Amino acid sequence: MRFPLGYRFAATYAGIRKDSREDLGLIVSDQPASAAAVFTTNRVQAAPVKLARQHLRASRGRVSAILVNAGNANCATRNGDEVAMASCRAVAKHLKVPVAQIIPASTGVIGVELDPSLIVDAVPRLFEDLMESRFPDVAHAMMTTDLVPKMAHAEVPLKGGEVLIAGMTKGSGMIHPNMATTLGFVMTDAAISPIHLRQMLVRAVEHSYNRLSVDGDTSTNDIVVLLANGASNIRPSERERRSMEESLCLVMEDLAEQIARDGEGATKLITIRVVGAADEEAATKIARSIANSPLVKTAIAGSDPNWGRILSAAGQAGVEFDPAKIDIYMQGVQVCVNGLAADFGENELKTKLDDRDCLIRFEIKGDGKGETRFWTCDFTENYVKINASYRT
Amino acid sequence: MRFPLGYRFAATYAGIRKDSREDLGLIVSDQPASAAAVFTTNRVQAAPVKLARQHLRASRGRVSAILVNAGNANCATRNGDEVAMASCRAVAKHLKVPVAQIIPASTGVIGVELDPSLIVDAVPRLFEDLMESRFPDVAHAMMTTDLVPKMAHAEVPLKGGEVLIAGMTKGSGMIHPNMATTLGFVMTDAAISPIHLRQMLVRAVEHSYNRLSVDGDTSTNDIVVLLANGASNIRPSERERRSMEESLCLVMEDLAEQIARDGEGATKLITIRVVGAADEEAATKIARSIANSPLVKTAIAGSDPNWGRILSAAGQAGVEFDPAKIDIYMQGVQVCVNGLAADFGENELKTKLDDRDCLIRFEIKGDGKGETRFWTCDFTENYVKINASYRT
Repeated sequence: MRFPLGYRFAATYAGIRKDSREDLGLIVSDQPASAAAVFTTNRVQAAPVKLARQHLRASRGRVSAILVNAGNANCATRNGDEVAMASCRAVAKHLKVPVAQIIPASTGVIGVELDPSLIVDAVPRLFEDLMESRFPDVAHAMMTTDLVPKMAHAEVPLKGGEVLIAGMTKGSGMIHPNMATTLGFVMTDAAISPIHLRQMLVRAVEHSYNRLSVDGDTSTNDIVVLLANGASNIRPSERERRSMEESLCLVMEDLAEQIARDGEGATKLITIRVVGAADEEAATKIARSIANSPLVKTAIAGSDPNWGRILSAAGQAGVEFDPAKIDIYMQGVQVCVNGLAADFGENELKTKLDDRDCLIRFEIKGDGKGETRFWTCDFTENYVKINASYRT
Repeated sequence: MRFPLGYRFAATYAGIRKDSREDLGLIVSDQPASAAAVFTTNRVQAAPVKLARQHLRASRGRVSAILVNAGNANCATRNGDEVAMASCRAVAKHLKVPVAQIIPASTGVIGVELDPSLIVDAVPRLFEDLMESRFPDVAHAMMTTDLVPKMAHAEVPLKGGEVLIAGMTKGSGMIHPNMATTLGFVMTDAAISPIHLRQMLVRAVEHSYNRLSVDGDTSTNDIVVLLANGASNIRPSERERRSMEESLCLVMEDLAEQIARDGEGATKLITIRVVGAADEEAATKIARSIANSPLVKTAIAGSDPNWGRILSAAGQAGVEFDPAKIDIYMQGVQVCVNGLAADFGENELKTKLDDRDCLIRFEIKGDGKGETRFWTCDFTENYVKINASYRT
């Protein structure tokens, strides 16, 4: 994996989580980067989310560093604002940049006080170890119930040379669309203004993080940040930005897919494809309704080709369609034709459904052009085990 | 349990489900009863739902019998309309009433063809055995993954004498508000016109079945029917109808609560009380969001007083509130004060949360008068076990 130029990374154990895995990560851009971000839509917003929003506004979209911790969400606590601010100040002091150029991010348990000195005291250690190649360490440090770190990257050849995009993300529960969802940090070494960066990010999020659901729950802490530091000395033209946006989309879709695959307790990645809806929004509503159905997700866990549940879940999406015009495919096998059972080999399909990847295709026949792709995971007993005992 | 006058009941095994438990039930009113019903809002509607709607319209709200089967939803099959109509005809023929006076209802797997002769051949057996006291047998016959039959009743003293209300219901998964949800049949021997009956039913459903969620999924087959056959010879006045409506509400709340308690895999009934919202609708939105959160429901399963998840779930309800004005109580113990952790004994509360009944109180401080009560259940590994293998 090649990393965008001009970024350095570090991670350490600050003592925030109980087990002594790294829980504090730092991303530094050697020159202030253009930045854009999307945030949780939850009415309850953690202190770092509020501060990140303020900082981006105050700095007019300039970011020198992102400081991220796991193990405590720094949300619904008495000293949340103080902790977030103290953390940013400690980083800003080292970098000798305005504090508004630091973006804080936290993930973990809600409502448990966080001792700011844990983070402040650990910051110097992070600066001792900053390296270009320690990108994966930050991806590790921000894991909570994640089983694997999640990274993706792309190389984009432009007229003036190659620019690089690399992203890391975390999240495996509380993942839901309609918001930024989870923590995601994506960097490029292209030179792009904050305004253009924002346009690219919003569109890419719409087709990646907003097409993802693990359990229908949103979080108080979600943020996705996109940085462009210009260290490649390449400033893409308008047309080149479009090609960069395509690559950005691919990187972020890859990250979203990795989140779904690592969904809490999940054994399977489910990709839902809806075609033939009136428009993309209608297609996405149907896909989301299927993705959020515990009945569909448990059936997939059991390799049960129970297409009736898929049809029923689609029926509660709030989108008009004629059930008699619906075809459904699972793993490429037609299970429903015109709203009725297709003739398929149940045992053969069950075996195909044992695969780690499950593809559901929901087709509305007619001339509708709306289509979408959506990711979720199967719903297993382990999801319950993990979440019945997460805090204690 | 005393049963309303003028109704008789029977149940038999028609061979629809694999195991030989009773799967076909009949409710007969000795004289055509006034009737009202609410139906699923799912875009995909089973044949019996469509036919029941047609019959109620054609008969102008007169019903002589309800025929209900478990084991097959008679939905998304080639011959669904034919099966529903043949079933109704068989009953109408015996009773010598117009076929439009028969209401069909089905529950079970979707998309599997149902042989109409199974039902038609069993109907004569039902008529051999009709008895006033066999009310519970029908409640048993319509169970699917239900562990217990669900019944409730009330006696309402009026000036002219006492009238009786009795209801039965089934459902333990695919239960969700915004619809009639599940199968429910409620009978009274008062004399009430279909128009007044409809008003009473709609209001009672709003405060019972529509305040209930097991897994956020709706079904293609849900119907709740209210019958009033006048066999008591008592016709309540307008004021008496209001008192009857209160009793009806209690009966239907009782049934809704029983459904939540018997939620698939559930070990606990969760009652969510929201107070201080702008209006009842806002309160209900918040309650529903808490009730639908797998993270809240798994925490309760694990007796984990994880109030941060409750706050976060409320935050995604789409209702504006100031987190700093939120108090949360679990089992009467304050766990959150002004959006922050309250000082409570965690171990003591964990013990209290081991109880079969869990009460969550979400209070918005201020002068909002909107409040609601909502039922759900905890979310255990058994929910997944049951649903990963329901069909096969």
